[in-house]
Amino acid sequence: MKALYLHRGQLSLLDDHPVPVLNHDEALLRIKLAGICGTDLALLKGYADFNGTPGHGFVAEVIEVGDEASAEWLGKRVVAEVNQWCGRCEQCSRKQFSHCLNRQVIGIRDHQGAFAEQLVVKVKTLHAVPDNVSDRQAVFIEPLAAAFRLVEQLQNRDYQDVLLVGAGRLGQLIAQVMALQGKQLKVVVRHERQRELLQGLQLDCISEVDVAAKSVDVAIDATGHPSGLTLALKALRPCGICLMKSSYPEPLSLDLSQLVIDEVELVGSRCGPFEMAIDALANGRIEVERLIDACYPLSAYQKAFADISATGVIKVLLKMH
Amino acid sequence: MKALYLHRGQLSLLDDHPVPVLNHDEALLRIKLAGICGTDLALLKGYADFNGTPGHGFVAEVIEVGDEASAEWLGKRVVAEVNQWCGRCEQCSRKQFSHCLNRQVIGIRDHQGAFAEQLVVKVKTLHAVPDNVSDRQAVFIEPLAAAFRLVEQLQNRDYQDVLLVGAGRLGQLIAQVMALQGKQLKVVVRHERQRELLQGLQLDCISEVDVAAKSVDVAIDATGHPSGLTLALKALRPCGICLMKSSYPEPLSLDLSQLVIDEVELVGSRCGPFEMAIDALANGRIEVERLIDACYPLSAYQKAFADISATGVIKVLLKMH
Repeated sequence: MKALYLHRGQLSLLDDHPVPVLNHDEALLRIKLAGICGTDLALLKGYADFNGTPGHGFVAEVIEVGDEASAEWLGKRVVAEVNQWCGRCEQCSRKQFSHCLNRQVIGIRDHQGAFAEQLVVKVKTLHAVPDNVSDRQAVFIEPLAAAFRLVEQLQNRDYQDVLLVGAGRLGQLIAQVMALQGKQLKVVVRHERQRELLQGLQLDCISEVDVAAKSVDVAIDATGHPSGLTLALKALRPCGICLMKSSYPEPLSLDLSQLVIDEVELVGSRCGPFEMAIDALANGRIEVERLIDACYPLSAYQKAFADISATGVIKVLLKMH
Repeated sequence: MKALYLHRGQLSLLDDHPVPVLNHDEALLRIKLAGICGTDLALLKGYADFNGTPGHGFVAEVIEVGDEASAEWLGKRVVAEVNQWCGRCEQCSRKQFSHCLNRQVIGIRDHQGAFAEQLVVKVKTLHAVPDNVSDRQAVFIEPLAAAFRLVEQLQNRDYQDVLLVGAGRLGQLIAQVMALQGKQLKVVVRHERQRELLQGLQLDCISEVDVAAKSVDVAIDATGHPSGLTLALKALRPCGICLMKSSYPEPLSLDLSQLVIDEVELVGSRCGPFEMAIDALANGRIEVERLIDACYPLSAYQKAFADISATGVIKVLLKMH
């Protein structure tokens, strides 16, 4: 089959990559559409030391299953959880599946990714895509779930106002998700396109220079840059919560004294609940179509990766079938 | 009056320091006994850039009040909150008095401290000391309150096991406070004396090398050293909580990627509820007498500060009257 392959930072298109072998608890998927995200770009720069086929936000069709018990999935349009969890370890027993101690991570760690014609995943990680969610929308389920993770993490917390730093790929989704929570939300934007998209949804945008010190209960950094985290921390009131929705490739120097004096909470945030993301798209509460800049066939992957790295570009898709 | 005075890192004893002037909402205290803590040692090294009389953990007698309405306090044995809050700012209106935006901090910021014969504090920050709490015990109310702050911060959190890194001045109190919470507690000790004190209270001690990676839900760093924080973070399970009960004078380099991947919470912790500390001492649930190594008159302050800096020494007191 055709598949992209990353080896030592070099991405190439293979024509004869072996079709993955199916185990009894797995499903063979025919990938329809996949999105390129920030983590994919980080992988190209060496993040997670990954060699193999990247890609983890996708929609596909089930074309084969490993045993009879899973026959109901055949022909279904699906997405799959990025974390392929074991179900037996301590974290799985706590239902923290995305922290499974034995997990493989689709297109990121020990597992083939979705920039390929076919992909094998565990049946228990599949989610059916409702008919009223298009393929182009479904590609956003994985990053949208990551945005909804913030809602889970803020559950039972008392807060009034939120500052989101970063309005890129993930930031656009987080902004919409946080706007649904009925709190006062401001989004720090850098580019005109980011501002236009958010203002089109009646969301409040501000510039970095207009962020007041110690002014919000919750600050979210979705920039991927240390400067975004610094700004988020600056904006927090004492006893505030700073959520890190970024991967910071380098160790970062932080003034922890200030965190202690202000009793600030710094919280990492990664993968989230697919169910909430699917519901939100099916109910029309999240708008993603306008975030798509381009869609290319797999053969034009070089153009796709060049596009996605350009300033102001939000989402580029690869069409496998 | 006699008072210690810190100027550019040099501590000296003044014989003729002016007695502080009393405002209408204040009380004049005759200091009986005060404890030297880690923050005092940090102040000597330049922390908080403080010049003036240090000392903030003390017990005293009210000898004068600023107006009639406070007459009930006259003659009472008291302690006072370190944070002298205004009661008018945004943080005070949220009842986060220790984060008052206009606060003076006794012996740390913009306020005279307790290593002096007399001290003026706001009446509303006074707490009466019950008769069955001795002066020597009462000196621990302030640091014990800081230890109980952890209990407030862990309220409504689901956790089973706790690792405390550090069994020094504050660590000894935190260990006892956390042991009251009915969770599984282990304490990382460095010195034999620390181990003896904790084992005398039937608390579990381990050495640094025996800390297992990703093994606890809550880790507390009370070492004051970056290495303590590193160990605490290492010991945390995914989705665990790391509480920082230390002031780190230097900016610290942290691998934030790991915090994001494991969705760890890093939480600063500072001052706490005096009421809880007073109750615990009055009810005999916390044992502090054995933590006191020495008690000196104010004139022997040099010996006291030399003692407190020695390995294995937990608490040294200064007797003002």
